[in-house]
Amino acid sequence: MIEPDFSKPADGLLPAIAQDFETGEILMQAYMNRESWEETLKSGYAVYYSRSRKELWKKGATSGNLQEIKEIRLDCDCDAILLKVNQIGGVACHTGRRSCFFNVAVPLKP
Amino acid sequence: MIEPDFSKPADGLLPAIAQDFETGEILMQAYMNRESWEETLKSGYAVYYSRSRKELWKKGATSGNLQEIKEIRLDCDCDAILLKVNQIGGVACHTGRRSCFFNVAVPLKP
Repeated sequence: MIEPDFSKPADGLLPAIAQDFETGEILMQAYMNRESWEETLKSGYAVYYSRSRKELWKKGATSGNLQEIKEIRLDCDCDAILLKVNQIGGVACHTGRRSCFFNVAVPLKP
Repeated sequence: MIEPDFSKPADGLLPAIAQDFETGEILMQAYMNRESWEETLKSGYAVYYSRSRKELWKKGATSGNLQEIKEIRLDCDCDAILLKVNQIGGVACHTGRRSCFFNVAVPLKP
């Protein structure tokens, strides 16, 4: 099986992008280390590594807004992870919004 | 205008995700520093920071596969950047594929 290359970054963390498997909406971006990757595969739900708390972070463990894994892809050099998920409860962001990417820096150009 | 917080990471780099503005397909993930962010805004095309070459990287400058900026969003804590782009030439990956995320680690579950 193809695996992420956790040896590359000095801190052993790779960016992981969560995307709604049905709509294609990007829900959030977080980080994974090898242990969170293995927990994700084992549990079938997204497990990240929290850089602030310095511990594994099972997304939605307290809120109930788990992310059920539907598919996982890696990029060409295996240093970025794409999780296609079923967002339980429809809310990925801690602000209560569906997606974390609600801040518009450059509005849509026609 | 809302801006990315480049002060947070020790190396001044934030992850940037390029997404097809029409189909929602995730094309690639790279990094931006403040200078590449400003060049992106000024030029209207995606400019990243190459960690291997340690220099600004205007995506497609040599291949012609530029990424025209259609919209830019930031996540809730402004430490991740989402570029919605028009992928010129239809190819984002250096392997010649449309998207870099062609490696299937976990196949789509029914």
